[in-house]
Amino acid sequence: MQNVDHIIRAEHLLTMEGDLSVINDGAVAVSGSDIIAAGSYDDISAKYSSDDITEGKDKVVFPGLINTHTHAAMVYFRGIADDLPLQEWLEKHIWPNEMKWLSSDFVGDAVELACLEMIKGGVTTFNDMYFYEETAGNRLTAIGMRAVLASGIIDFPWKDYSQGPDDYFRKAEEHIKRWQESELVTTGVAPHATFTCSPENYKRAGELAEKYDVALHTHLSETEFEVAQCKERYGKTPVEHLDSIGFLSERLSAAHCVWLTEKDIDILAERKVGVAHCVESNLKLASGFAPVPKLIESGIKVGLGTDGAASNNDLSILGEISTAAKVHKAVTGDPTVVNSKTAMLMATKNGAEILGLGDVTGSIKPGKKADLVIADLKQPHLMPLYDVYSQIAYAMRPSDIESVMVNGKFLLKDGSPTTADEDAILAKARSWQEKIKQN
Amino acid sequence: MQNVDHIIRAEHLLTMEGDLSVINDGAVAVSGSDIIAAGSYDDISAKYSSDDITEGKDKVVFPGLINTHTHAAMVYFRGIADDLPLQEWLEKHIWPNEMKWLSSDFVGDAVELACLEMIKGGVTTFNDMYFYEETAGNRLTAIGMRAVLASGIIDFPWKDYSQGPDDYFRKAEEHIKRWQESELVTTGVAPHATFTCSPENYKRAGELAEKYDVALHTHLSETEFEVAQCKERYGKTPVEHLDSIGFLSERLSAAHCVWLTEKDIDILAERKVGVAHCVESNLKLASGFAPVPKLIESGIKVGLGTDGAASNNDLSILGEISTAAKVHKAVTGDPTVVNSKTAMLMATKNGAEILGLGDVTGSIKPGKKADLVIADLKQPHLMPLYDVYSQIAYAMRPSDIESVMVNGKFLLKDGSPTTADEDAILAKARSWQEKIKQN
Repeated sequence: MQNVDHIIRAEHLLTMEGDLSVINDGAVAVSGSDIIAAGSYDDISAKYSSDDITEGKDKVVFPGLINTHTHAAMVYFRGIADDLPLQEWLEKHIWPNEMKWLSSDFVGDAVELACLEMIKGGVTTFNDMYFYEETAGNRLTAIGMRAVLASGIIDFPWKDYSQGPDDYFRKAEEHIKRWQESELVTTGVAPHATFTCSPENYKRAGELAEKYDVALHTHLSETEFEVAQCKERYGKTPVEHLDSIGFLSERLSAAHCVWLTEKDIDILAERKVGVAHCVESNLKLASGFAPVPKLIESGIKVGLGTDGAASNNDLSILGEISTAAKVHKAVTGDPTVVNSKTAMLMATKNGAEILGLGDVTGSIKPGKKADLVIADLKQPHLMPLYDVYSQIAYAMRPSDIESVMVNGKFLLKDGSPTTADEDAILAKARSWQEKIKQN
Repeated sequence: MQNVDHIIRAEHLLTMEGDLSVINDGAVAVSGSDIIAAGSYDDISAKYSSDDITEGKDKVVFPGLINTHTHAAMVYFRGIADDLPLQEWLEKHIWPNEMKWLSSDFVGDAVELACLEMIKGGVTTFNDMYFYEETAGNRLTAIGMRAVLASGIIDFPWKDYSQGPDDYFRKAEEHIKRWQESELVTTGVAPHATFTCSPENYKRAGELAEKYDVALHTHLSETEFEVAQCKERYGKTPVEHLDSIGFLSERLSAAHCVWLTEKDIDILAERKVGVAHCVESNLKLASGFAPVPKLIESGIKVGLGTDGAASNNDLSILGEISTAAKVHKAVTGDPTVVNSKTAMLMATKNGAEILGLGDVTGSIKPGKKADLVIADLKQPHLMPLYDVYSQIAYAMRPSDIESVMVNGKFLLKDGSPTTADEDAILAKARSWQEKIKQN
């Protein structure tokens, strides 16, 4: 009988491994940061003992959700400008506000709010692209979340990056070095998009990522306008263009991928690029419908992302699961596409694999880190229960998430954050809100 | 100084009247079932006193949400079959289960669960089309919700309606008479759809509704298949067909209206038919995208509906608001359509007007019944706050709904149902689930 730190029991356990079958009356044994074993409660309790056994009645346990594309700190711009044409939204609202407010403090305080919202919604890992990512790392590791933090790269000087590209790359490299030993933070380089980054800067980003073996993250073919502009400038679609400069590889998570040609899809599949599908952002900004069923058919790994809260307007991956599982049915006219299991895979295992964290998180498997969610099924909107995958994909809400563990530590327990100081975080958000509103 | 039963204070008060401007530090005075006054707290507290003053810090108060199309009792089939082709879903799962299980008891127990879910999500009125509507009325009035209950009419005999149409119409008429004096229930007649109801039965339904001055409710142009079949059978689109038999009027709420010609839209506008837009059901069943911006432009009143929980899979109007506000932007390529105020109007005032309840509910206005919602804005996913309409439309969740009043009575107070016995309702749902799963 081996003693472990936690045994987490579940009336329904979804490991997101193998044939995805549901383990009824299951349990997960956790010690330190690791998943030791997962299986039926009878098997687990025959082999393991623990002083901390979480009861499983009416609970479903599944892997922590993965947000494969966000700009966490933009949560402070949630709802600052909506229902506007894209250029007006960007040029008159988002960019001027970023220009005015962005700082290390702003990013740090905002990232705390983003972490709190994500944890309460069952998200345990996010893939971030923004600025001041070192500060983001300091704040989120204090809370205990997991993230891939990729430093944004653009062609022009801005704020504390007054030397332009040299500053971005210098800070990106410092950031990479800073987190090399971290258990929670991995890093990456994030050239913003083909319309804000030259081929030279894309190449330089690729080389930096390769030098340190870290991730790449970019926006790709989000809008029709972007594709048209890229074709005009380079005579190629954004996918063809980035492929021609050798930027596409398994290292890359490409956000959006809405406007793709058949050839683009073949290239993405061939290069094993992961796609971060941000369905709600694409709807709200009127970008269009990414061809997700086709991407999946082509063997491309697709994860789900919220994008920044300014364009969504929340950081709920449960919301993205539900919307993704529904929207593509109407787009294709086929109610069988993106079924509940597929949507859950996108939000867990596939998402983790896209971020280069396939060995670390995304499923409940011995040897992986203990990133998992306990949700309460005894809710009016979750009854009756016939199929637990359907219930999660189509009816579960963030408020059903009861406890969340990251790296073996409970960050949310019975609805209450254990490491994030909710009152302080909300007070800081309120104080920034007042400053921003007055200016 | 007039004494009233309740003064409900609100940091932000949305009456959904006039120019839709937000009243900061507002209040609503309620006596008996009625709204007595609404305005700034200073004005209200100068004129009215009450022993029950609800504090308004961090709260937004808005009219109770209106669900303009559902089959409430189908909540017991939530998640019983998903991700299937429409005919297989209907013929192998929904219809056989209805055939096996439907009864007065089933409908009564299920409607209680539906009411509980809707109340907790801020829905105060729903427009129902189903069978055993008298039982539905008994259960929901015991809880204190408001509804328009329309008795389903189909051509063929079924269950307790063994004489076919004569039985449906006899029971529909009894049901209408039963609720003539009710403050909470109004009634209607609901011929199911052009593919299940003959022109004769549509006409008979129209005559019955006219005789008693009650509502009409039908499914209209939901799927491409339905339109094709109707054209083959009658040489007309469903809208043209129903217009040719004189069925279309202001009395009618028409659910779905996905597949419409320009001529159909003109007819619906001309006849002042109200449209119940069920965006999530249309997505999930792959029905398509209703041309909502066009409908609104044509002056047609559009409300929001969840449809039954078997096809959605919840009864959240907040969810429908968010999805409707986003989806049409991507469909039209225009991020300004269905903005947050429009979506909120659909879910409140316009919804009530479609149901013939424009003088009763749907906005906060002296003389209307006190149907309203208090929501808590002090949540990580609702901060910071720049625009309260945006926040409700794009980020608010049912779990933010704190208190709900219907007809002057709190049905939910600080998160707890006051009239519905939640434990008993969940126990009954579980017990039906077990029976249904075993068969």
